[in-house]
Amino acid sequence: MTAETGMTETGMTETVSAEQQVLERIERARRRKARVKEERVTLAHGAGGKASQTLIDAVFVDAFRNPELEAMEDGATLTLGASRTVFTTDSYVVSPLFFPGGDIGDLAVNGTVNDLSVCGARPMYLSAGFVLEEGFPVADLQRVVASMAAAASRAGVAIVTGDTKVVERGKADGCYVNTAGIGVLDRDVALGAAAVRPGDAVLVSGPIGEHGVTIMLARGELDIEADLASDTAPLHEPVAALLDAVPGGVRVMRDATRGGVATVLNEIAQAARAGITLDEAAVPVRPMVTGACELLGIDPLYVACEGRFVAVVDGDRAGAALDALRAHPLGEGAALVGHVRAEPPGLVLLKTTFGGTRIVDMLVGDPLPRIC
Amino acid sequence: MTAETGMTETGMTETVSAEQQVLERIERARRRKARVKEERVTLAHGAGGKASQTLIDAVFVDAFRNPELEAMEDGATLTLGASRTVFTTDSYVVSPLFFPGGDIGDLAVNGTVNDLSVCGARPMYLSAGFVLEEGFPVADLQRVVASMAAAASRAGVAIVTGDTKVVERGKADGCYVNTAGIGVLDRDVALGAAAVRPGDAVLVSGPIGEHGVTIMLARGELDIEADLASDTAPLHEPVAALLDAVPGGVRVMRDATRGGVATVLNEIAQAARAGITLDEAAVPVRPMVTGACELLGIDPLYVACEGRFVAVVDGDRAGAALDALRAHPLGEGAALVGHVRAEPPGLVLLKTTFGGTRIVDMLVGDPLPRIC
Repeated sequence: MTAETGMTETGMTETVSAEQQVLERIERARRRKARVKEERVTLAHGAGGKASQTLIDAVFVDAFRNPELEAMEDGATLTLGASRTVFTTDSYVVSPLFFPGGDIGDLAVNGTVNDLSVCGARPMYLSAGFVLEEGFPVADLQRVVASMAAAASRAGVAIVTGDTKVVERGKADGCYVNTAGIGVLDRDVALGAAAVRPGDAVLVSGPIGEHGVTIMLARGELDIEADLASDTAPLHEPVAALLDAVPGGVRVMRDATRGGVATVLNEIAQAARAGITLDEAAVPVRPMVTGACELLGIDPLYVACEGRFVAVVDGDRAGAALDALRAHPLGEGAALVGHVRAEPPGLVLLKTTFGGTRIVDMLVGDPLPRIC
Repeated sequence: MTAETGMTETGMTETVSAEQQVLERIERARRRKARVKEERVTLAHGAGGKASQTLIDAVFVDAFRNPELEAMEDGATLTLGASRTVFTTDSYVVSPLFFPGGDIGDLAVNGTVNDLSVCGARPMYLSAGFVLEEGFPVADLQRVVASMAAAASRAGVAIVTGDTKVVERGKADGCYVNTAGIGVLDRDVALGAAAVRPGDAVLVSGPIGEHGVTIMLARGELDIEADLASDTAPLHEPVAALLDAVPGGVRVMRDATRGGVATVLNEIAQAARAGITLDEAAVPVRPMVTGACELLGIDPLYVACEGRFVAVVDGDRAGAALDALRAHPLGEGAALVGHVRAEPPGLVLLKTTFGGTRIVDMLVGDPLPRIC
């Protein structure tokens, strides 16, 4: 790591020791039992970053304790009779409901398809739960449902069970959708952050941040026009291509939704107790996204994607893995963006384009609420 | 049926012919392709009755079409490898969140456990999806979660995966919960409304309407005090007792939630294309519930239960079925309330305590919004 700080020999010892102190402080904080300090739920608790993690650890995992949940992957792996099954759920509260490139309907299908896919499962069945606000136009509901049907058909899944509740005007925001999904583990894979080891390569499947920035622009919060669309897409095919290209070589995959690539990599680094070094120059970001993020004062590494995933793969087979991803239309912008190191455990370091190194922590606060 | 109208011989022909016209009109209306006439979603669309059924048929089933969904049972039966699995989902928006006898947490667990149970499955795994309103007290969330954990433990299920979203103040009502559930079909049962035949007996597992009336009272909409509590409970045990007591003798089961026993029986009668005759005097209703319903001007047959189910069983084995139910604390108030007849197909007739007969249709409108 010191070689990457780009500092002079003289300044280094001092700086490293200051850095060491920071690392130790972070480590100590993380070792503490999670506790929600706030008395009331804030938007940050739903942002997928640090506050979400604390809420999950302190409230949900603590109460529900079981090995499947504590694995803390995007889905739970279950044994049902002879078959290994993955089970996952997500609620969708995106605002606006309709945006360039998609709507809450295909987002809700693709999101759950992707959670199953990155767990290594073949997505098969989805449930759909609707919470509708009284007064929501039936035509809008039909549009959302049609888009769910199209997304399900594209991903080869069937929506087999559902539920609808209606709440009074002012008790929701048009339409919230929950999907849960079941997939089957056809392949003999053992994926998980615990499998990650030094020397592994970190890939992203395409340019990042397009979904999040598209939603921001669709809200009219920035007075700019941009030719951008959400990247929402089902990832089962590029994931399958990757798994088939490097059998046994994929350690863990995560779709980079709320909290973005930075948060996903922090989760992996923490669970694996390994360090991850990212090369900023290698991270694919479209100029339009970079521009919008500069105006917003946010880092694209924290912006949600809905059709991109992060994969940690055997470093020796990174080339074959990249080739397989790039051969699929949904992976053609894939890139090798970093490596796993033994040190510093649990941290993600970014080698900046200016030649420096900085710690990239999990998302703090919620710069982009209701992104999915 | 004519024998049950209690009318004189002379008046009968005329009346029957008038009745016949009504039946034919109902039949014609039901045969029409479902179409949502309203331009906007109303509370009735979430009430579990007629408007819900139209929304489901016209919007969801039409778009999502697949055999598992079109079976229209409380859960979808899936084949995953060698095992037969049931998958179901429900969202919970009950108001208030905490009420005598339970809260949204145990309701969300028991409700999904019950949907799996009445499909004949052993409930195994649940997902939990939360939509929280900014400002919701963390202590209340902890209370809900603790109650979900206790209910899960009581029902022998594990909550293995979850998701939390937060929306801005005024875009939800504290806390909405979605649960999806997976159960395994251990028994070789083929349950479904299509198996119902004339001569079958209709059972309910206990006194009806307590959950719905408790929620109404908890809202303070009636200026009365009553010693009532929600009946929310997991039904896997009484259901298993019933299935074991009369192997092959259970046709179909449904938990009588939104829309109550009347709506469930209409669904069964329609799907089976059979008639159901109910004996009002045999339907167990606690005096407190009867009293509150009279004040509210609603029929207890339409009031939601959250710990009662309806079972249609082989008429010859109704006695053994009842005995098995009554032997379990959650079925001790079970009763035989009616029979299946060939005529009139698709309708539920009530033999009233006054000796007359009237048609009991599905719930229309929403007398008790946000009951679950």
